[in-house]
Amino acid sequence: MNVVSGAKAPEVTDLHRAAERLEGVAHRTPVMTSSQFDDITGARVFFKCECFQRMGAFKFRGAFNTVASLEPAERARGVVTHSSGNHGQAVALAAKLFDHTKAYVVVPKNAPQVKLQAMEGYGAEIVLCEPTMAERESGATQIIERTGAALIHPFDDPRVIAGQSTAARELIEQAGRPLDLILVPVGGGGLASGTALAARYFSPSTRVIGCEPAGADDACRSVELGRRVPVESPATIADGLRGQLSQLTFELIHKYVDQMVRVQEADIRAAMRWVWDRMKILIEPSAAVPVAALMAGQIEAGGKSVGIILSGGNVDIEAVIDHG
Amino acid sequence: MNVVSGAKAPEVTDLHRAAERLEGVAHRTPVMTSSQFDDITGARVFFKCECFQRMGAFKFRGAFNTVASLEPAERARGVVTHSSGNHGQAVALAAKLFDHTKAYVVVPKNAPQVKLQAMEGYGAEIVLCEPTMAERESGATQIIERTGAALIHPFDDPRVIAGQSTAARELIEQAGRPLDLILVPVGGGGLASGTALAARYFSPSTRVIGCEPAGADDACRSVELGRRVPVESPATIADGLRGQLSQLTFELIHKYVDQMVRVQEADIRAAMRWVWDRMKILIEPSAAVPVAALMAGQIEAGGKSVGIILSGGNVDIEAVIDHG
Repeated sequence: MNVVSGAKAPEVTDLHRAAERLEGVAHRTPVMTSSQFDDITGARVFFKCECFQRMGAFKFRGAFNTVASLEPAERARGVVTHSSGNHGQAVALAAKLFDHTKAYVVVPKNAPQVKLQAMEGYGAEIVLCEPTMAERESGATQIIERTGAALIHPFDDPRVIAGQSTAARELIEQAGRPLDLILVPVGGGGLASGTALAARYFSPSTRVIGCEPAGADDACRSVELGRRVPVESPATIADGLRGQLSQLTFELIHKYVDQMVRVQEADIRAAMRWVWDRMKILIEPSAAVPVAALMAGQIEAGGKSVGIILSGGNVDIEAVIDHG
Repeated sequence: MNVVSGAKAPEVTDLHRAAERLEGVAHRTPVMTSSQFDDITGARVFFKCECFQRMGAFKFRGAFNTVASLEPAERARGVVTHSSGNHGQAVALAAKLFDHTKAYVVVPKNAPQVKLQAMEGYGAEIVLCEPTMAERESGATQIIERTGAALIHPFDDPRVIAGQSTAARELIEQAGRPLDLILVPVGGGGLASGTALAARYFSPSTRVIGCEPAGADDACRSVELGRRVPVESPATIADGLRGQLSQLTFELIHKYVDQMVRVQEADIRAAMRWVWDRMKILIEPSAAVPVAALMAGQIEAGGKSVGIILSGGNVDIEAVIDHG
């Protein structure tokens, strides 16, 4: 069964295989609840804490599933990606854990030193480039031509999407009751696509709501127009959500995500701070976007059981507070 | 069996009853691990996350067990405590949850507004007083004389200690392997006493190590001298650990805590920040003290299975960063 145009949407067998590959490698992250949050929102909310995932974000799931999906001969030539953020760390760690596969990460020169160090700590070879998308892609292409390494895209890949689906699948299992809604942040759309597929296959009565910063709302606009539109001058503290959908993630979201909501910056900041101060969980701004949608009353959730995927915790605390 | 001089040390039946009373009321907080932390320390470390406990600290356990232990007629007159911190919130919440018992909390005028609001949010009646210990105690005494309310001490009470023991008991169960060591912060000594008793009764081969800021080391000095000495001008960021032992907690710690270590301020700050940045768990400075003892190499832990009780997460982030 292949339900989306093009040949690339992951099927249910791909989701099963991803869960098997990640078993015992990815953390089965805890699901937390907060009676205070329930009092505020009138819902019963289950927070899936992917900020506690290896390297601090759900991205590890997709990266590892993809590295593990490669043919041995292919993997022997290494893997490559370009990233200034979580995905680079995810590929570096996934490669290290899967039989010490060689990983190359093309990183823009202006990326934070701490992220470079994390990738190097996982054993990746860092290739610095000028901070433009063209230079990043050209840097990765040169490595592929020279080494034959396999490109690991951050979201435009059914293996990556299948890996990301495992977070929502675990949440569905761990909640211990049927979920009426799952809220998920939308950036490039890999997590949202995987979440929508997990709900479709493992909890068909659950509605999936994609949450996007109003300042980077290409997914909202794309779904409204029925065709993929570019993100223009993204302006949001949620740095993980500034990218835009690929054709594949657009089609999956258009078809299987039940609703999209735009979230205001002030609400994102307030929600992030609430989770820090009350739940003691250090989430990154991108992870606060669905929390904000619920706290700001943008989603009808009274009396409902709601899952929220707290997508990651890689935040520069001082920078975020200074901006606050 | 009463193993300590005086008649007040909790017995194993008290520990069992406390666990029963807290079942389904206190969170069974998750135990987290970090392969990075294990790499740094050479140990296998299990973090018991009491920062995720109700009201953000283990203190809820002892307060609730004590409120639940009162005779109905006694409880009907209400409970009282004095506190500028976690214990006041713990008593307020415990009273609310146990049949909406009336709670009075005497709070020094200079306590943070946010803590006052939290206690009021739990329905407690706040009585402000001058910020001296004499005024706090006199304020509580006046309320007792007027209302007949029962005093809930933060640590000098076998019911409180029995409640705190449940954190270590859960950790012993959740670790899934025998623990060689459990590290616990020492302030007034309620958590350390409860932890030592839990190890004694439920995991006798586990050694318990008390960790104290060098700038507030009355417990270390008391154990060294074999008699209780006062804390003098405590100077530490770990605001939860500035108090001093009672006779009861001194005797329990002297008898059942296997080792005491002093931890330096710079190590406490570095450990707190490491847990924030790498584990994404917002711990308060007091909770970082045992983490620091291990990271700074003050404890022989290579190859060992080690439990650490992350005691709480109620931290003023801006204040702690500004001081950093």
